[in-house]
Amino acid sequence: MIKVVVLGSGNVATHLCTTLEKHTRILLLQNYNRKGENIANCGVTITNRPTEIVDADLYIFAISDDALPTVNTEFNHLKGLIVHTSGSTPLEVFSSFERKGIFYPVQSFKKNIPVSFSEVPIAIEASHESDQQLLVRFAQSISKAVYVLNSEQRNILHVAAIFANNFSNFMYTQAEEICQTNAIDFNILKPLISETITKISTNSPKEIQTGPAIRNDKKTIERHITTLTDQKKIKLYQLLTAAIQHYYE
Amino acid sequence: MIKVVVLGSGNVATHLCTTLEKHTRILLLQNYNRKGENIANCGVTITNRPTEIVDADLYIFAISDDALPTVNTEFNHLKGLIVHTSGSTPLEVFSSFERKGIFYPVQSFKKNIPVSFSEVPIAIEASHESDQQLLVRFAQSISKAVYVLNSEQRNILHVAAIFANNFSNFMYTQAEEICQTNAIDFNILKPLISETITKISTNSPKEIQTGPAIRNDKKTIERHITTLTDQKKIKLYQLLTAAIQHYYE
Repeated sequence: MIKVVVLGSGNVATHLCTTLEKHTRILLLQNYNRKGENIANCGVTITNRPTEIVDADLYIFAISDDALPTVNTEFNHLKGLIVHTSGSTPLEVFSSFERKGIFYPVQSFKKNIPVSFSEVPIAIEASHESDQQLLVRFAQSISKAVYVLNSEQRNILHVAAIFANNFSNFMYTQAEEICQTNAIDFNILKPLISETITKISTNSPKEIQTGPAIRNDKKTIERHITTLTDQKKIKLYQLLTAAIQHYYE
Repeated sequence: MIKVVVLGSGNVATHLCTTLEKHTRILLLQNYNRKGENIANCGVTITNRPTEIVDADLYIFAISDDALPTVNTEFNHLKGLIVHTSGSTPLEVFSSFERKGIFYPVQSFKKNIPVSFSEVPIAIEASHESDQQLLVRFAQSISKAVYVLNSEQRNILHVAAIFANNFSNFMYTQAEEICQTNAIDFNILKPLISETITKISTNSPKEIQTGPAIRNDKKTIERHITTLTDQKKIKLYQLLTAAIQHYYE
């Protein structure tokens, strides 16, 4: 039975407490948060005093990236494995701890929307092999998708996520704006967008690329450029069309 | 009761026949296709002879864009409203017909995957007001999402779809490739991608943009550029970061 203390009061801390409290093979001993609030509205013991934190195998700091360095001074009396949940902070942030690790759930959480942790990918890292095993065992007990990644790989995953989320979302913004300036309901495109996502669940996105760029359909590309009126969108259309053509050359 | 003939043997023709044959307020009289095949494996009468096509209110040519001009010579004996299902072909392609229109289902179809037409957005256009009414009535009897768009708007919708599908899919390709070259499983990112799609079903993509570009987080942007090794991806990262920053300025 792995004994766990969750520290923090944000979305990740809340969902972790909710999930761990019901778990039969994990013992959630305590939640620490500054205000001493019962964040998950559950039966877990709450404290807001660092000195009252009980002995555990695993301490999960689900706090903001900026606050992580303060753990070295405020919580340096803790024994056991100390981990954080940040995707972009290296292991070394815990400079005053010898046993340290990362438990990074690759999903965005909202407080009031229930999360099925079993579907959330978890990226794991630890400074010691035995702690990595402990973390993997812990993570696998709540998620079906556990990956061991070192800090460099996690950084690369973060770059990939910029393309997969931030940049693709910016494309949706462009599409919505093109619709809006022409009194077309953006909802018309949503089933098509969902379809792309359904497709990449079983196909490589590389294999399902369609459109005038990959077909080198010059007539349609020319018509589209004439259709667009915003110079920045024209530039973006041309750059991305060229990038696609170059990629599939 | 609207009397309909569907012409063609592709994915759209097949799904239309399957849907219309079961319909209680639409009378599917016939399917024409060159090979005389029973494409939808249903009870509809099939013909492969243009002269045997029966009288109907509506003829739906669900054939390839390239083949549409041939309708003017091969099928110019047909009375009733003649429509095509193409998103990028103007109404004027049917030069020898007086009553013409467009019935464009904004979704990609695959032959063996069932489609719930009630969820498929339909873009409608017709050269006559009365025919537009007929088409809207017909479309609304099979779909909850019917939009009247003229050829210019449909062209604009097509441009918007390039951003929403082709360009966003290319971003997924970049993300997958970044993962692959670094031995990271691309599946880790799929729940995050799905989450973005869930979010834009109720939020404007403009409002949910996140990431280092919009935060102007120079340190992370610099780290990401150093992480990437492929010059084309670096260029793309820089251009899109600049575009996002410019957009939200």
